[in-house]
Amino acid sequence: MAVTATTVAETCAAAKRAARTLGSAPTEAKNAALEATARLLEERTAEILEANAADLADERAAGLSAALKDRLTLTPERVAAMAEGVRAVAALADPVGEELERKTLESGIDLRKLRVPLGVIAVVYEARPNVTIDCAALTIKSGNAIVLRGSSYAERSNGALAAIVREALAEAGLPEDAVVLLAGGGHEELAELATQEGLVDLLIPRGGEGLKEAIKAVATVPVMYAAAGNCHVYVDAGADLEMARQIAINAKVQRPGVCNAAETLLIDAAVAPEFVPAILGELAAAGVELVGDERVRELAGEVEVGAATAEDWDREYLELKLAVAVVDGVEEAIEHVNAHGTGHSEAIVSGDAEAAEEFVAGVDAAAVYVNASTRFTDGFLYGMGAEIGNSTQKLHARGPIGMRELTTFKYVAHGDGQVRG
Amino acid sequence: MAVTATTVAETCAAAKRAARTLGSAPTEAKNAALEATARLLEERTAEILEANAADLADERAAGLSAALKDRLTLTPERVAAMAEGVRAVAALADPVGEELERKTLESGIDLRKLRVPLGVIAVVYEARPNVTIDCAALTIKSGNAIVLRGSSYAERSNGALAAIVREALAEAGLPEDAVVLLAGGGHEELAELATQEGLVDLLIPRGGEGLKEAIKAVATVPVMYAAAGNCHVYVDAGADLEMARQIAINAKVQRPGVCNAAETLLIDAAVAPEFVPAILGELAAAGVELVGDERVRELAGEVEVGAATAEDWDREYLELKLAVAVVDGVEEAIEHVNAHGTGHSEAIVSGDAEAAEEFVAGVDAAAVYVNASTRFTDGFLYGMGAEIGNSTQKLHARGPIGMRELTTFKYVAHGDGQVRG
Repeated sequence: MAVTATTVAETCAAAKRAARTLGSAPTEAKNAALEATARLLEERTAEILEANAADLADERAAGLSAALKDRLTLTPERVAAMAEGVRAVAALADPVGEELERKTLESGIDLRKLRVPLGVIAVVYEARPNVTIDCAALTIKSGNAIVLRGSSYAERSNGALAAIVREALAEAGLPEDAVVLLAGGGHEELAELATQEGLVDLLIPRGGEGLKEAIKAVATVPVMYAAAGNCHVYVDAGADLEMARQIAINAKVQRPGVCNAAETLLIDAAVAPEFVPAILGELAAAGVELVGDERVRELAGEVEVGAATAEDWDREYLELKLAVAVVDGVEEAIEHVNAHGTGHSEAIVSGDAEAAEEFVAGVDAAAVYVNASTRFTDGFLYGMGAEIGNSTQKLHARGPIGMRELTTFKYVAHGDGQVRG
Repeated sequence: MAVTATTVAETCAAAKRAARTLGSAPTEAKNAALEATARLLEERTAEILEANAADLADERAAGLSAALKDRLTLTPERVAAMAEGVRAVAALADPVGEELERKTLESGIDLRKLRVPLGVIAVVYEARPNVTIDCAALTIKSGNAIVLRGSSYAERSNGALAAIVREALAEAGLPEDAVVLLAGGGHEELAELATQEGLVDLLIPRGGEGLKEAIKAVATVPVMYAAAGNCHVYVDAGADLEMARQIAINAKVQRPGVCNAAETLLIDAAVAPEFVPAILGELAAAGVELVGDERVRELAGEVEVGAATAEDWDREYLELKLAVAVVDGVEEAIEHVNAHGTGHSEAIVSGDAEAAEEFVAGVDAAAVYVNASTRFTDGFLYGMGAEIGNSTQKLHARGPIGMRELTTFKYVAHGDGQVRG
C-alpha cells in the first residue's frame, strides 16, 4: 500500500502543504490527474478486485448483513462506473477563481470576490469503497486536499484505490499528499481528526446518528453533516390522487435505504376516506410495514397497520417501513413536518396552487417538492455533476454538497495607495 | 420595560414563532417597521438618553475604563445616527426570495434555488447600545427574528431601544417577538442560549477571545464568530516606499481599536535598510509602542524598539502597539502571515505584479489588499449597506457579515407528477 500514514496530525499537515499547491494548480493539471485516475482504475481493475476480495474474506466481514456486504463489494462494472464518474468530474467547469462579484469602492479600490478552495477536507465514511474515488475526484477538481477516513472493513480496497489516485496526482505533477488515507484506527483517531484546528478546514461525516453524535461531542474543526433524512409526502385535499399514489409509492419503495426516501405519509382528512385504504393496500402489497395514527387505522380496512408510537414520527427507517397520519389541512401538515422533519426533502401533492405555495413557504427544509417525489434531491440530478453527500444544515451548504460547496471565497482588493480617512 | 423575558427557552420559542411570520412578510411591512423604528428613535430620544444615563450612573459602570464608558454613552447625535442607519437598511434591497439559480431538470422538474431567512439569529454583544438597533434592523429586513443578549452594563439602554423596535413592529402589523431581549443574567444564561437546538438557527458572538472560548466550550447551535483580527502589512522589495509609509501608518494609527487595524508590519530585507528607520521613527512619533525582531532592532537607530517575544506575533493589540519583522521575500511573508494571522485582512505594498499575485494567492484570509490599507474591510465600505460583524471563518460567511450572510436558501421544485425511475 502506497499510503503509509503516521500520526493523524502529521497526515493532516502533509495534506495542508499539498493543499496550497493544489489550490493554485491550473485546471489542466487537475484534469490530467483525474484522467490518469480513470485510466489507472481501468488498468488495475484486477488488483482492486483482489484487495476487495481480501476485505470481503476478512473474518470481520463475516458479521456484516447482506446489504452492507453488497455495499462493500466491488465488481468490474462498479470499478468501471467509478472511472466514468471521475471523467464526469473532469468534464465539469473548474469552480476555482470564479469571480462572484466585482465592484469599485468609493475610494477607487477594485474589489473582487473570488471563489477559492477551502483547503483540507476530511471525510469520514461508511464501508463503501467507491466513496474513496468519488470524494477524491471532487476535492481534486475543486483544488482541495482530502483526508479520507474510511471504514476498517474496506481497508484494503480503500488502500488500493487511494494509491491509484496518488499515483495519478504524481503523474500530473501534483503533490500526492493531496489525497491521504488514514490507516484505520478507532474512536481516538476520529477524535484526533476532528480536533485538527488550523489543519482541517472542513470535516464531513457521512453516516448515521451515532457517528454524528460522536463527532458533535468532540469536534473543534468546522463540520458539515451529510445527515439523516426524515422526509414526508403530504397528500393535500387538492391532490390528484392517482399522482399522489405514484409519488407516495415512489418516495417510499423505489430505494428505501437512502436519505431522500419518504418515512412518513401525511394525508388530508378531506381525501383520507378515499385515499387511505387504496394507498395502504398498495404499500402493503409492495412489502411496506405500516404504522399509523388512530384515524389512519380506522380507515385501513383489511390492511394491517400498527399503532404509531411517538418515536415513529421522528424515525428515519431506511427500510420498507412507513408512518402514516391524517392531518386537518396544509397548516397542520406544515406543523408536523417542521416538528418532526430533519430539513432534508419534503413534498406536497396538490393541484391547489395556494396550498402548494403555503407548504413551500412554511416548510423549513433544504428541498421542497410540489407534485414530485422527494427522491430527486441529488447532486447529479440537480446538475451539480456529483455530490459528496446531502447537507441538512442551513449554513454554508444546504442540500446536495457538490464542488461549489467545497469552496469558500476571498475578497481581493487592488488599490493605488488608498488609506482610510 | 416592554420586554419581559421569562426563560431563555421560552424567549427563543417566541422568537421562532415570530420568525415564521417575518420570513414571509412583504418588503413593505418590513420597511414600515424600520421607518417606524427610526421615527420613534427620534421622538423618544429624551427617554432613551434617560435610560442610558441610569446605566452610566449605575455603580457597576463606575469601574469601566474611559474608552468603555464612551462606547456605552449615548448622545442626541448618536441616537440620530442610529435612526439614520435604520433608514439606510430600509433603503437596501430585500434579499428574501431572490432567485439564485433556476433550471429545468432532465425529468422536467422546474428547480429554483431561492434565498430565504435563516430563522432565529441570536447576537451576544458588548456594552454598545447602538448594536441593539443595528442588528435588529438587519435581521428585520432579512426576514429573521433576533434574540439580543447585550451586556448588563447597558441593560436599561438596551431595554428602551428594544421596546421601541417592538412597538414599531406592532405598528407595522408584524409580530413584536421578532425582536426579543434577554433580561441579562450570567454565564448560565449564555450556555442556555448556545444550546437551543432547533430554536436558534445562528448564534453570533461579538467580542473578545474570552467570549469565543466560553461559547466554543458549550455551543451546540451553529455559531459564527465575529472574530479577532491579527492583520499584517507587508512591504515588498518592489514597494513604492512613500505609499508603504502611508499605508503602514494608516493601518496602525487611524483607529487602532478595531479588528481591521494592523498589528504586525513585515518588511522585505531588500528595502529594510532604507525603510525601517524612517517608518519606525514616524510610528514612534505617532505614539506607537514598537517591538521587533533582531534585524529590525539593528536597523532602528535611535528609535526605541523592544524585543518581540514569540507571543507578540500572535497578538491582537487593539491599541497603539506594533510588532515589526524583516523577511526575505514574499514567500517568507506569506508563511509568516499564514502562521500567525487570523485570516481577517492582509495587505501587500508592491509595484511588482507578480509578487502581489503570489501574496494574493498564497495568503489564506477573508480579504487581501494590494497597495491599500487593511482598514477597508467593512460591510458599509464594501457596499453591503451595514454589517453585524466580520467573520474570519471560511464556511458560510467570510469577511463582513451583511444581510445576505443572514440568509440561507431553499430548493423549490415544481413538477407534474415526476417520480424517480
